[in-house]
Amino acid sequence: MNQRLRVGVVGAGAMGASHVGTLAAGVPAAQVTRVFDLDTARAKDVASAAGGEAAESADALIADPEVDAIVIASPDFTHADLAIAAIEAGKHVMCEKPLAVTADDARRVVDAEVAAGRRFVQVGFNRRFDPGFQDLKSSIIDGSLGEVRVLHGIHRNASNATSTDDAGLVTGSMIHEFDTFRWLLDGEIIGIRVESPVTEGFRDPQVATLWTDGGQMITAEVFVNAGYGYDVRVEVVGTGGSASLEPRTPVIRRISGQGGSAIGSDFVAHFIESYRLELAAWADAALRGDVVGASAWDGYVANLVAGAGVAALGSGARETVDVPERPELYG
Amino acid sequence: MNQRLRVGVVGAGAMGASHVGTLAAGVPAAQVTRVFDLDTARAKDVASAAGGEAAESADALIADPEVDAIVIASPDFTHADLAIAAIEAGKHVMCEKPLAVTADDARRVVDAEVAAGRRFVQVGFNRRFDPGFQDLKSSIIDGSLGEVRVLHGIHRNASNATSTDDAGLVTGSMIHEFDTFRWLLDGEIIGIRVESPVTEGFRDPQVATLWTDGGQMITAEVFVNAGYGYDVRVEVVGTGGSASLEPRTPVIRRISGQGGSAIGSDFVAHFIESYRLELAAWADAALRGDVVGASAWDGYVANLVAGAGVAALGSGARETVDVPERPELYG
Amino acid sequence: MNQRLRVGVVGAGAMGASHVGTLAAGVPAAQVTRVFDLDTARAKDVASAAGGEAAESADALIADPEVDAIVIASPDFTHADLAIAAIEAGKHVMCEKPLAVTADDARRVVDAEVAAGRRFVQVGFNRRFDPGFQDLKSSIIDGSLGEVRVLHGIHRNASNATSTDDAGLVTGSMIHEFDTFRWLLDGEIIGIRVESPVTEGFRDPQVATLWTDGGQMITAEVFVNAGYGYDVRVEVVGTGGSASLEPRTPVIRRISGQGGSAIGSDFVAHFIESYRLELAAWADAALRGDVVGASAWDGYVANLVAGAGVAALGSGARETVDVPERPELYG
Amino acid sequence: MNQRLRVGVVGAGAMGASHVGTLAAGVPAAQVTRVFDLDTARAKDVASAAGGEAAESADALIADPEVDAIVIASPDFTHADLAIAAIEAGKHVMCEKPLAVTADDARRVVDAEVAAGRRFVQVGFNRRFDPGFQDLKSSIIDGSLGEVRVLHGIHRNASNATSTDDAGLVTGSMIHEFDTFRWLLDGEIIGIRVESPVTEGFRDPQVATLWTDGGQMITAEVFVNAGYGYDVRVEVVGTGGSASLEPRTPVIRRISGQGGSAIGSDFVAHFIESYRLELAAWADAALRGDVVGASAWDGYVANLVAGAGVAALGSGARETVDVPERPELYG
Repeated sequence: MNQRLRVGVVGAGAMGASHVGTLAAGVPAAQVTRVFDLDTARAKDVASAAGGEAAESADALIADPEVDAIVIASPDFTHADLAIAAIEAGKHVMCEKPLAVTADDARRVVDAEVAAGRRFVQVGFNRRFDPGFQDLKSSIIDGSLGEVRVLHGIHRNASNATSTDDAGLVTGSMIHEFDTFRWLLDGEIIGIRVESPVTEGFRDPQVATLWTDGGQMITAEVFVNAGYGYDVRVEVVGTGGSASLEPRTPVIRRISGQGGSAIGSDFVAHFIESYRLELAAWADAALRGDVVGASAWDGYVANLVAGAGVAALGSGARETVDVPERPELYG
Repeated sequence: MNQRLRVGVVGAGAMGASHVGTLAAGVPAAQVTRVFDLDTARAKDVASAAGGEAAESADALIADPEVDAIVIASPDFTHADLAIAAIEAGKHVMCEKPLAVTADDARRVVDAEVAAGRRFVQVGFNRRFDPGFQDLKSSIIDGSLGEVRVLHGIHRNASNATSTDDAGLVTGSMIHEFDTFRWLLDGEIIGIRVESPVTEGFRDPQVATLWTDGGQMITAEVFVNAGYGYDVRVEVVGTGGSASLEPRTPVIRRISGQGGSAIGSDFVAHFIESYRLELAAWADAALRGDVVGASAWDGYVANLVAGAGVAALGSGARETVDVPERPELYG
Repeated sequence: MNQRLRVGVVGAGAMGASHVGTLAAGVPAAQVTRVFDLDTARAKDVASAAGGEAAESADALIADPEVDAIVIASPDFTHADLAIAAIEAGKHVMCEKPLAVTADDARRVVDAEVAAGRRFVQVGFNRRFDPGFQDLKSSIIDGSLGEVRVLHGIHRNASNATSTDDAGLVTGSMIHEFDTFRWLLDGEIIGIRVESPVTEGFRDPQVATLWTDGGQMITAEVFVNAGYGYDVRVEVVGTGGSASLEPRTPVIRRISGQGGSAIGSDFVAHFIESYRLELAAWADAALRGDVVGASAWDGYVANLVAGAGVAALGSGARETVDVPERPELYG
Repeated sequence: MNQRLRVGVVGAGAMGASHVGTLAAGVPAAQVTRVFDLDTARAKDVASAAGGEAAESADALIADPEVDAIVIASPDFTHADLAIAAIEAGKHVMCEKPLAVTADDARRVVDAEVAAGRRFVQVGFNRRFDPGFQDLKSSIIDGSLGEVRVLHGIHRNASNATSTDDAGLVTGSMIHEFDTFRWLLDGEIIGIRVESPVTEGFRDPQVATLWTDGGQMITAEVFVNAGYGYDVRVEVVGTGGSASLEPRTPVIRRISGQGGSAIGSDFVAHFIESYRLELAAWADAALRGDVVGASAWDGYVANLVAGAGVAALGSGARETVDVPERPELYG
């Protein structure tokens, strides 16, 4: 039979447990062998359901000879150090977004890869693997929209337990938009402004304006307590037309004077197929020594933009995003 | 039979001729008796198709005893003086937007009404009469959206022969959004910023950010050479949900691997029913000595916002909109 | 000023009163001068709101010199005799559907026109004037669907106070579909079968299968107590594609895990613009001595199909529709 | 590591190769060990891409100790005998639809299972595993539609290389609808009529009418050369509302006066996720000795309905579907 990538998963919370389940039920190229979580009972449950075992610590998991590659789904502040440890152990990594809490920490991951002379890290910007987002990108690439001038992003949660302060909304939620726009446009964000109609307490929603090195302007609304459901949309507008990602569940109900479709509130369910494709692509690439998807560099730049966004939220002004020279490793 | 409002129309261009046709074919309460245009042959043709006659001049039309009320559809720079002349003649006016090119000129119309001690002027912000926009407003009023936080407006033309310079896009096209937002929210715009991804030549599209006295932020994209068609959309987002005006023609064609509906390029055709309802409401009100729809004050404030918008386009900064105290006449 | 058609309206029920209101508020070419209803107080109210007077009887209304043309909106069983009386008086008629309760009665109207040597009657198949249905028809005419093979019709009411028995559903509701299909396809229905999943009590919904002389098959579901709202859809399927009339109200609400739009229950509101265009086209034509829209012949054939449909509902078999030779008058 | 089901695949055509690829890339519980096809080079290619080997014959594959379970994706006429051979070998089967070409052949499979005293066969009615169809079914089960009265099915291919004669359209394409309706309604089809507007040559499209033991009527249009794309829709109409499966790709393009989304022509791509879920559910069940999805009995009844449908296409009449007593084995 074919070789399978033996995967250790650090973090068995909602995202980590979902990844373990997805690997076990939908990614034949991978096999979950170890799971670590501070909640050891939970780690054991999640691991055994997938045919693996709990690890004693994250370090032990990374060092374990039964682990070829690591999925990092632990709290954000642990990401960078875990990724660096994995790099130093010469093991492939799929690190949940964000790569780090600060750009400086993310830079340390980049530097570790540069020092190692090769790449190991894929950052979990899963939208890059979503068929809808890929179709949207193809509308740009195939030229049918002409020259792209403006993008509009919407990112709403019914409610959000993790993005609960002003900066966290930028670094934890809006960071998806930063990577999405860079990837869709194959360009760099050079300026950002973040504002909110809410001036007291938690500033939610936030409205960002972004500028790219390709001459586009972008508006992005992120509203993590929008109440009605999980809703992610992007419209790309060019001189030749517009393409708009507007997913809709396939069943239309007509009842009591209303016709429409369900809007879920669970982002994991919404993007479940993208997670599977992301993990499958990661495992396939790792087995052949390759890295696909968002790189550590992409993760670092997303953190740079987020840092400028947080500064902008404070200054009320447009902040410049200064992206250093890209190391050759990220060609 | 019932009394009919005898209407004189100044300007027989595309908009004026459309209004004459709409009055003749769809507004029984009105009767077009006089039409004036510098192109006298055109004035005669348009008038006679509606059973009326050409007038010798705008002044003569306003003074004509066969004219009870005036529709102003001549070039923008003539609006204010014509409206003032009509007010002084004690005749009702339906003045196409904008009420004036500058806020100062619009203020003169307001002052003329205040001096006259009564209102005569309806400004042609036709969206207020569009069933879709009214339905959108009802979503706000009925409370189902909770507290409104953000609005997003889209206003695209396939191409535009009249909004052809940076300021003109604001004062001629985006001015519709200014009135729409004020009317939807029953509030005042207190700040505006206007930017464009295009930095050389005609800065189209433009992206505006607006702030209201009700604590909302608004993004508005106006793109007058969007190529694909005429497209006007508004989304209103509150703490309880979102309502989005997204008109669609009723026939879905599925041909050659594509399923969808037609998007027209003619704004008059798109909003034709709103024009009829606007003119009908104006004629009904005029017959009973009343004024409905957007007032001269609304027209003036829209000009104030547009003026600040043009300044913002130059300064690159957020400009404050200073709305003076509202005269009692506008209650 | 232009000449106006002086209209007498027989029947001031929901449909009649709506027509009076539409003529008064939206059809400048017409003027309601007389209204008759057995409920004389209602007739007076409806008439005076439009600037007209109540008539003493239907006969008096038809004979009245202040009446140039007649709208028949009285109970169905009165339609044929009233239409014939109007023809004999040489006055134009807009007769609500159906033209008659039976094909024999409808034939008497046709014969009266033939005897008069000219046409006076338009039958109120309003869908022919609906912009959506016209757009659907244009998809057939322009050839983009290739050769049409199949149509599917849906016609649902939330509840229905008038179509309350098996035959009445066919003759009162489904008759709209019969005319729609003939008009869309510019063809003749040659066979019909009507069945229902409900075998006891009121057989609602009913599912009809129809055959045309153009080689098409049609399915039509009519469900007059469908509960959720008023819903009329038609899909036309050809060898080159499909066109589907699927009207949707323009505002999308996203609230509480559902996204969708309102579905009304009032067929008059749903088709209000088609009624106005129908009455306007009728008045314009009458003023120039012409007749447009569905003819008495079309009304008669619709009754023929309905008669075969009622027979089919009883026989359980496909019934042939035998359309006699068309008199020259109907070209 | 977890046990994996070792799968042998008979038939490496489009469907078989797709299943091999899906198993290899998306079903960790299974492992393709053997592939047989008359085209041995193709079998070898398909097998080796998945890490398996070509088998010498279907019999050898079924007998192979490295094969725990069999996927049958060979030509329809081979299905029944292969399924019986697998049953006799005591191995699980996922047999592509139809289970057999005739009901008699399908009955032999049922009889083989009954003789074996246990079930081995899942029939590849993949729609049962499609999230959209499952959502549609939940609308029926949760009672929100009230009592279901009518269903409407649409099944169109751009073009079809396999359903190329009148009977083949029923037994090869429409058979999907038969299973879908039975499964959605948890009921039995008791009558069927199949007609076509096309009377010469290949009778495509066909329009079926079906009756269920739950008192529902169903219309189903199957058009295997519809030109524009692959389109499968079902509407379920009850006394409380309607639920309609209307999948739409998530990106809306607005270009050149048209707004809409892409319609593919590849049924495998359209339903690819349902195939993966079907195969995964099959493998999981087989590993625990269970059978899920459509049973051999369901496959047999679908063939019975198809047989009645073919008879109806010839007779022009409604044909009764006589379903024998269900063996206890099928609960």
